[in-house]
Amino acid sequence: MGPGPSDVHPRVLAATAQPTIGHLDPQFIGLMDDIKALMRYAFNTSNSLTLPLSAPGSAGMEAAFANLLEPGDKVIVCVNGVFGMRMCENVRRMGGELVTVEDEWGSQVDPEKLRATLKQHGDAKVVAFVHAETSTGVCSDVATLCGIAKDAGCLTIVDTVTGLGGIELHVDDWHVDVAYSGTQKCLSCPPGISLITYSDAAAARVKARNTPVQSWFLDLSLLMAYWEGEGARTYHHTAPVNAMYGLHEALLMLHEEGLQGAWQRHREMHTLLAEGLQSLGLDLVVDAGYRLPQLNLVSVPDGVSEADVRKQLLSRYNLEIGAGLGAFAGKVWRIGLMGYSARQENVLLCVNALRNSLPG
Amino acid sequence: MGPGPSDVHPRVLAATAQPTIGHLDPQFIGLMDDIKALMRYAFNTSNSLTLPLSAPGSAGMEAAFANLLEPGDKVIVCVNGVFGMRMCENVRRMGGELVTVEDEWGSQVDPEKLRATLKQHGDAKVVAFVHAETSTGVCSDVATLCGIAKDAGCLTIVDTVTGLGGIELHVDDWHVDVAYSGTQKCLSCPPGISLITYSDAAAARVKARNTPVQSWFLDLSLLMAYWEGEGARTYHHTAPVNAMYGLHEALLMLHEEGLQGAWQRHREMHTLLAEGLQSLGLDLVVDAGYRLPQLNLVSVPDGVSEADVRKQLLSRYNLEIGAGLGAFAGKVWRIGLMGYSARQENVLLCVNALRNSLPG
Repeated sequence: MGPGPSDVHPRVLAATAQPTIGHLDPQFIGLMDDIKALMRYAFNTSNSLTLPLSAPGSAGMEAAFANLLEPGDKVIVCVNGVFGMRMCENVRRMGGELVTVEDEWGSQVDPEKLRATLKQHGDAKVVAFVHAETSTGVCSDVATLCGIAKDAGCLTIVDTVTGLGGIELHVDDWHVDVAYSGTQKCLSCPPGISLITYSDAAAARVKARNTPVQSWFLDLSLLMAYWEGEGARTYHHTAPVNAMYGLHEALLMLHEEGLQGAWQRHREMHTLLAEGLQSLGLDLVVDAGYRLPQLNLVSVPDGVSEADVRKQLLSRYNLEIGAGLGAFAGKVWRIGLMGYSARQENVLLCVNALRNSLPG
Repeated sequence: MGPGPSDVHPRVLAATAQPTIGHLDPQFIGLMDDIKALMRYAFNTSNSLTLPLSAPGSAGMEAAFANLLEPGDKVIVCVNGVFGMRMCENVRRMGGELVTVEDEWGSQVDPEKLRATLKQHGDAKVVAFVHAETSTGVCSDVATLCGIAKDAGCLTIVDTVTGLGGIELHVDDWHVDVAYSGTQKCLSCPPGISLITYSDAAAARVKARNTPVQSWFLDLSLLMAYWEGEGARTYHHTAPVNAMYGLHEALLMLHEEGLQGAWQRHREMHTLLAEGLQSLGLDLVVDAGYRLPQLNLVSVPDGVSEADVRKQLLSRYNLEIGAGLGAFAGKVWRIGLMGYSARQENVLLCVNALRNSLPG
C-alpha cells in the first residue's frame, strides 16, 4: 500500500510466468494487437497511435517529450510536485525552452496561472502537467487545463502514471494530445512498462519532425514499424515478452471490471480509509476537492517518527506504506489504494496496523 | 531456437511470478546487491560500477554511449553487422563525431583496419564494437581490439548482448571499459533488462562530464544513487521488481553451472548441431575460426523458401528459428543455441525437423 508498485493480482503474476515466445511470433503479434485495443479502452481514446513502451513510466515521460519536442521548442510545464519537476528536467536535457507555472506542493495546478503564462508566451508549442501527482496526492483538472492549452494552440502532454484505471480519464473528450502511464499503479501489474497514446495532431507533429529523436530506443517512428501494420512487423528491439503477458492480463481484468467500476471501487476504498484515519485522529493533507482516492497523504503527528512507524508496519504486518518525497519528506506518509491493493481487507489492515503502531 | 529470446528455464519463470514487493523494500535492496555481485561473476570483472538497467539491450547500448560521450567526441565504431550499424546511429543522435571501420557481413572486425584508423584519428576518444554479432554469427577478437584501442589511449565499448554466458569473456583481463548485455540470450531470462559494467576509467569519465546526459532515464549518476551505497537508496525510477527476480535466478543458475561449464556446453551443442546440419547437406555461413557457437547462420539452399521452412517448423514442431537480417535477409536461417535452449534434445529436434521440412 505504498505509492506503487501496487499489489499484483495472482492472475497477472501467473500470466507473467507463461513460457517466453519470440517477439516476432505470430501469436505474440496477435497479443500486441489485443494490448493496443485494451489500452484504447483504458485511456478512453480511439487514438490509432497507442502502444506500450519497453521501459518504466519515467521512460514513458521521456518518450513523450523526446518525440514531440525539437530543440528550441518552448514548453510550459505546470509544477506542483516531483513529477512536474522531472518533466522540467526532461525538457532541459532535450534542449527545449522551459517555462514553468508553479504551484505549492499539495495544491492543484491553477488554471488562471496557466492562462496568464500562455498569454505571455504566445509562441509556446506544448503544455505539460501531471494528472495524478504521486508525490502529493493531488489531482489536476485535466479537461480545464487542456482546454486552455488548446485555445492557445498548444499540444498537451499529460502524465497519468498514477491516474490510469484509478480515476476518471477521457483522453479524447478532454483533448489530451499525449498521455502516458505505467503498469505498477492502478493497473496492478509488475513495474517495468509504460503505456502511451498520441492524438492524431500529436502523431502528425512527430511525423513532421525536422530533427531525429535524440533517443534511438524511444524513437516512435521506429517503434511504430514494430507495433503497427498488417501481418509481419519490423524488428526494432526485443520486446519484453513476459511483461507484455502480464500487461495484457491486467488490462483484460480492468476491462472485465469496467472503468466505471474500477473508478468507483477506488473512491469507496478511499472513503473507508479516510474514515479509519479520522478515527485515529490522523489528518489527510490534501483538500477533499482535489484529493486522489488512490494515493493518500497523511500528516505524521508531532513527536512521531515516520520511519519507525513504516518499519513497524513492514516487519510486524508485512505492509508497505510510502514515505514523503521532496518538500514532504519526513512530514507525511503516502498510503496507496491502487488497483488490486484497493480492497476492503487492506484498508482495515492498514488502519488497525497504524492504530497499533502509533505511540500512546 | 531463434536469435533470442531464448527458451527460459522454469526456475526463472517461477521466480518472475513471485509476489511484487516495493522497489525500496530492504529485502529488494538485498536482492539488488546479490544481482550486482552475480553480474560481476558473469562479466569476469571486479568493476564497482556494475548494474542492470530497466530496459532491453538496445537501451543498454544507448546508456553505454550516452553516459560516456559528450557532444563532439570522436568515436570509432567497427561495423560488421546490424548491431555495429545501430551503434553508429546512437553516436550520430548524440552529436558524436562518427568514424567507422567497415568489414563485410560474416567477416570478423579486422584489427589492422582499426589500427590504421586510430593512426589517422589520433583524437578519437572511444572505440566500440560488437563481441557477438547477432545478425551474422561472428565473434570478435575482444582482447586484440581492446588492446589496440588502449594503446591509442581510447576507452572501449563492447556489445556482448549475445555473448555473455555463452562464450569466453574477461572484462578485466581483456581491458574492456564498458560492456553491456541483455537478459534474453545466453542468460535465458525473459527479455526486457540490460546489464552493464564500467571500468574505473570509464566511471571516472562519466563523473567528469561537462554536459548532462541527454537521457534522464539512462543517466548513470542518478541510477547510481539508487543502485549503490550502504542502506537506504534514493528513488530514481520504479525498478522492474519481478524482472529482477528473474534476472537474479538466471544469474544464480549461471553461477551454479559455472562460466567454464556454460561455455563448454555451448561449444558442445554447437558441434552437435554442425554435424547434424552437415548430414543434411546444409552449410554454415561463418568460418569456423570465428563462428559463434550460440548463433548459427545456415545458408538457405537454392530453390528453398526460407520463410516457408520457418513457418513449417513453427506450426508442425512448435520450434522457432530466425530469419536473416539486413544483407542476409532471405539468404540464411539463424539457429540459436543460447542458454537453456542449448540442450541436446533441442539440437536433435531442430535437425530432424529441418530434415522433414526441406523439399526432396
